[in-house]
This record gives sequence, C-alpha cells and structure tokens, in this order.
Amino acid sequence: MEQLFVIKIGGNVIDDPQKLEGFLRSFASVKGKKILVHGGGKIATKIGTGLGIEPNYHQGRRITDDKTIDLVTMVYGGLVNKKIVASLQALGNNSIGLTGADANVIRAVKRPVKEIDFGWVGDIPRHSINTSFLVSLFSQDITPVFAALTHDNQGHILNTNADTIASQLAVSLSGAFDVRLIYCFEKKGVLMDVEDDHSVIGRIDHALYQQLLTEKKLFEGIIPKIDNAFDAINSGVREVLIGDSSDLLANTTKDTTGTLIIY
Amino acid sequence: MEQLFVIKIGGNVIDDPQKLEGFLRSFASVKGKKILVHGGGKIATKIGTGLGIEPNYHQGRRITDDKTIDLVTMVYGGLVNKKIVASLQALGNNSIGLTGADANVIRAVKRPVKEIDFGWVGDIPRHSINTSFLVSLFSQDITPVFAALTHDNQGHILNTNADTIASQLAVSLSGAFDVRLIYCFEKKGVLMDVEDDHSVIGRIDHALYQQLLTEKKLFEGIIPKIDNAFDAINSGVREVLIGDSSDLLANTTKDTTGTLIIY
Repeated sequence: MEQLFVIKIGGNVIDDPQKLEGFLRSFASVKGKKILVHGGGKIATKIGTGLGIEPNYHQGRRITDDKTIDLVTMVYGGLVNKKIVASLQALGNNSIGLTGADANVIRAVKRPVKEIDFGWVGDIPRHSINTSFLVSLFSQDITPVFAALTHDNQGHILNTNADTIASQLAVSLSGAFDVRLIYCFEKKGVLMDVEDDHSVIGRIDHALYQQLLTEKKLFEGIIPKIDNAFDAINSGVREVLIGDSSDLLANTTKDTTGTLIIY
Repeated sequence: MEQLFVIKIGGNVIDDPQKLEGFLRSFASVKGKKILVHGGGKIATKIGTGLGIEPNYHQGRRITDDKTIDLVTMVYGGLVNKKIVASLQALGNNSIGLTGADANVIRAVKRPVKEIDFGWVGDIPRHSINTSFLVSLFSQDITPVFAALTHDNQGHILNTNADTIASQLAVSLSGAFDVRLIYCFEKKGVLMDVEDDHSVIGRIDHALYQQLLTEKKLFEGIIPKIDNAFDAINSGVREVLIGDSSDLLANTTKDTTGTLIIY
C-alpha cells in the first residue's frame, strides 16, 4: 500500500510565526500523500479577550459555550486554517482547508452532559469519517489541512481535540494506506530522562512499553500519548511517531530522530 | 449542457438569522448543480469594533489593511462560511466551504497601488479559476460555498468583491454548463419605478436595455449591476437573474419572479 503521513501540529508551532513558517516549508517538501491537522494555539484566547470572551476551564479542559464556539470557528477554521493554506499554496503545495463539516468529512457527536457540560465539544465515533472525499483529494494531489473542528450534522460546529482528529483520520485511512501518524510536540521524542533532550527512545514496541511502565521509567505526562498511539496501532495504523516539529523531514523517512511507536 | 446555478447572497441575508435560515432552506431544495457565494455583512465590522479595528473607507470602498484582512479571513472564511456549511449539512445538502486559496480555486492579483492603496484587495484575472476541482466536487454531489476571499499565490489572502467572484465563477464554468447567475438583493428585481415593488421588469435583453437607458427609465444604482450582467452574458453565461433572496425557488425555475437578463 502507498504511504500516507497524518501530521498533527499543536499550539507551540501555531503561536510562533517563525517556527510555523519553517514547519510549513518542511511540510511542503514532504513527498507523497499527507494530511495536516492543526490546533489553534493561544491566538483564540487572545482574540477572545479582546472581544470580552473569557476562557472557562474545568480541570484543565476548556468549556465551549456559545460565544466560544463562534470564537474558535473564526480563529481555527478561518484565520489559522486559511493562512496555513495560503502559505502552502505559495510553497507550491496545493492544499485545502477543512473542518469536519466540509464535505461532511467528520461527523461527531456532542459530548453528553454528565457532571459537567463541556458545551459545543464533539467526540468522534468510529466509522464516521468520509474517506472517499479524502481519497478524491489525494487523487488530485490536494493536501487536506484540518482545523480542530467537526460538526454534529444538526447544524452545529463542534470543538474537537486535534490529537483525536489526527488519530481518527489515521485509523479510518489505514485500510487504504500504510499510515504513519506523526505528533509534533515540544520535545525531540519520548525521553528516558525528561531533563535530557538527548535521551530520546528511538523505538517503542508493546514489549518495551510494558517494561518501561513496570520500571516506572517514563514521565507520567507522556503515558496517555503512548496509550493513544497504541490504540491507533491496534486499530490499523502502521506506526506512530512522536517528535519535534523542526525534525519533520527526518521523521518522514526511515531515519527517524523522534520516537517511533510500532506494534 | 446541464444547468448550473451560481447564486450570490449579500449582507442583507447574512445579517438576518431568520432570513438566512429561510434562504438556506430554499437553497438546499434547489435541485441540480449549484454554487453559493456569500458576502460578509455587518458582522465583520461589529467584531472588528470589539477588537479595536475601525473600518477605513475611501469613497465608499473599504481599505483592507493588515488587521482588516485577518478580521475578514476570520469572519467571512471562518464564522460565516462554516456556519452556512453546517446548516446546509443539517438540511441534507452536502457542501464544502471554500476561499479562493483552497485547492487554488481562485488565484487573484493584489490591486496595484495608484492614487489609493486599497490594501489586501484582490482582482480576478480571466482564466484564473480552477474549474476542474469544482467539476470534481459536482461529480461527488458536493455544493461549493464561497466566502468572498481569494489569494495571490504568494501567501496572502485577498478580500475580493463577492459579486465579482460569482460572476467569474459563472463565466469560467459556462463552457461546461448552462449557467444561470443569480444575484439576490433587497428588491424583487429591476424595478420600473423604484418605489413600487410590483413594477419588476421580468426580462431585459440588449435591445430593451438600450431603450430603457435612452428613455432614462432606470434607477441609477441598478445600472452597474445590469452592465455587469451583460458582461457575464457576453462572456458565455446563459442568463443572469436579479431578484429577492426569498424568491430563490421561483427564480431557479422557468417562472422567474425577478428580472431575467438575457442576450
């Protein structure tokens, strides 16, 4: 099967224009099929403050009320997404900006209200991704660029975790492509010693992961990311790469510098 | 050739949630191939005021400085566009939100600075529309929904007149489709007496237009719109309809209630 890269960048790249520019240059030069998924960064909070929309968190998770969904729809789906697309076009990488509402690509479900009402937040059920539209884009050499927004098919845009969108896209396309899912984050990879950037663990499989967990050698914050990576792999994704956005080019080859997570 | 409707709505529809909802219901029930082009309405000005971005006009035309292009990219390309797409999806009309940057559909040229620097404003040269992508959307039964934004292929989004986008799309697709270009505006059509909504002129061809001009029977404000309509017709568009957004359904049939402009 042909290779496909599903690449997610987070706020640390979006918020730094120079870092973003460098990343997009690398991304544009990645050969073959690829998808970009981006978060929103701090710019939504900054613009929201200007508009009198104060962020509202519960245990570190943002609550998306009526004003906030409008805010993130504007900022993620408009400002950030279209600027990335315009930049990629200038770099000769034909691309298209999408939310999950566009072409009904990602239909999500509004998170049910239990103890907390998270508001206009969407979770993505399995089998709710329209892969045929994405395949038609690939056949036209057009790169999809996703903002972290979906819809409920009842007229509402939903704020949706960018890691989850990337992972669900990767899983849904794994039947047709050899997918490498790449999470760009602040570190070079999964570190044996969180204080030492040179201690990247180059490759983690199930056996090594169990051993690292037993020996309590991993920084706690990274464990959910690795769990999510194995979830994706158990659902058909070939491999997951966790690395620094500035190492993208190496991390799309065999000579990865980040952490490659494999079955 | 198959029929295609290119339908433009302006600020009077965007700014009125009830009118917009009614319009989208009608739009969703229009059978066959169609494109929607929307302006931005007053919401950009309102949000801009909240952010301290004051509108700057020269002889009635807005100047698009750095802050303003970010504002309209957010509001037109994000908020307004994605809400329309989500609403159409809920109505069972598969659609996709686009700017001219997406899939490189409309490449424009930044307006040259002469006496006035209009800023990030784009004009659309002929033959700069990527019709093959639009045709691929039609073949998948996906309706394109355009915000009034293009790009310069050098990394910049450009603010572009929605009437012009609609007209250029109509012209560029007229080789493959029988195009009816529909401009929705505040009146029922071109009126013989601007004070009387019942005085719609049902049909205008070149000969009648010359006669009406000679007899000075037309309200001056409508003349540029009719001139633009004839420009489109002279460039291949089959017919142009000027009418009220609430009459959309009739105006997509043979029994039009607005003004049909034909060769």
